[in-house]
Amino acid sequence: MEPVLFYGVPHGCSFGSIVALEWLGQPYRLSRIDMLAKSKSNIYARFNSKQQTPTLLLENGKPLSESFAILQNIAARDLTRKLGFAQGTEGHDRLNQMLAYLHTSFHSAFAPAWTAFKLMEGDPAIQLLRDLAREKAAEGYSFLQSHLSGREWLVGENKTIADAYLIGIARWGEDLQLFDLKREYPELYGYLHKLEADKAVIFAHAIEDGKPAVSSGQFLGHIGLDDIAPRLAA
Amino acid sequence: MEPVLFYGVPHGCSFGSIVALEWLGQPYRLSRIDMLAKSKSNIYARFNSKQQTPTLLLENGKPLSESFAILQNIAARDLTRKLGFAQGTEGHDRLNQMLAYLHTSFHSAFAPAWTAFKLMEGDPAIQLLRDLAREKAAEGYSFLQSHLSGREWLVGENKTIADAYLIGIARWGEDLQLFDLKREYPELYGYLHKLEADKAVIFAHAIEDGKPAVSSGQFLGHIGLDDIAPRLAA
Repeated sequence: MEPVLFYGVPHGCSFGSIVALEWLGQPYRLSRIDMLAKSKSNIYARFNSKQQTPTLLLENGKPLSESFAILQNIAARDLTRKLGFAQGTEGHDRLNQMLAYLHTSFHSAFAPAWTAFKLMEGDPAIQLLRDLAREKAAEGYSFLQSHLSGREWLVGENKTIADAYLIGIARWGEDLQLFDLKREYPELYGYLHKLEADKAVIFAHAIEDGKPAVSSGQFLGHIGLDDIAPRLAA
Repeated sequence: MEPVLFYGVPHGCSFGSIVALEWLGQPYRLSRIDMLAKSKSNIYARFNSKQQTPTLLLENGKPLSESFAILQNIAARDLTRKLGFAQGTEGHDRLNQMLAYLHTSFHSAFAPAWTAFKLMEGDPAIQLLRDLAREKAAEGYSFLQSHLSGREWLVGENKTIADAYLIGIARWGEDLQLFDLKREYPELYGYLHKLEADKAVIFAHAIEDGKPAVSSGQFLGHIGLDDIAPRLAA
């Protein structure tokens, strides 16, 4: 059976994996995980003991976790789609470098603000944590805007899994009300705006929002956790 | 000319890349970057605008940054050494998954304690930040100890770049005086203790400490930043 991506809502970093699966154009299914649910699913814990999203259930019934690994798995399924590069090439090095930067420095820049988001209103730590996040994320937006100067995509000549991942997490600055990207980083905003018009990105938003979604790839529909349990490897 | 690794001291995550270069067994040089130096090198800024370590200067004169990308570059230079796996295989997926976990969740768990380390004594934020780091890092040590149960190495049947990376960052819990690993995580400590006896790990410690270091690979010596400038690609 085709792979199944467990994606987290709302606004998780799974977004990039949905976009990449659409770009790949091979059959896949989705399974939705509410990250804010008070009671966690015991079934999902069997896929991912840390209850993190995304996870990709592979054809052999084994789960693959960590967004970085999932995106590279998707790209390697068909290198002719140019979502990634062959191992041992300069492109592969540059893609690993950009993906690593996005998954470490840039992703973690927002972490203090997400911690603040969970604190009770009035807690004096909130401002400290939000200031820290704004400082770190500003470095990231600034670096990305300067990196994109004179380039159409993050790595090489085509859109890759790095662009898919960035469009899913760059929005956090506005989700957390830390930045006005259009005003503060106009060139970076232009790149993000271009990506927002991509069919796969429009599809991924509709999926997240629970609205009718038109696949330009080979999306075969959602599958519930109860229906997946029999597919799990022992 | 052979590649040059810029490694950060003291106790940076570059440690893993030194170990991996020793295991690879191909010629390489090292260049030392003092991460605590008050004045940063303008020459190093040309390799890495964010002044982070490690960076690997490639044979073509271009710098490759991000530890994850450097480690995968080293492994891909000779897959017969089994430091990594061929793209498209299950081993490659599992290695990406473990490296991603170590570079994101586990690495970033310590970040609040490093932030606290830079604050003035008496700052009320110090305890908050250290508590946060201890909570997150404890999850990490616990997960890694349970993952290693019944295994000799992190991924597959051989030591890989994942083990090289972990031995360089697992020590941070004790560097920051947050944990007593031998008492709190005895099985994980056993695995780390076994790695500490590896010739490449002993070599990397000696290099960090500025002591005489015996290479079991093909280390060709240190090179200063001034001598490297002419090698840089335009």
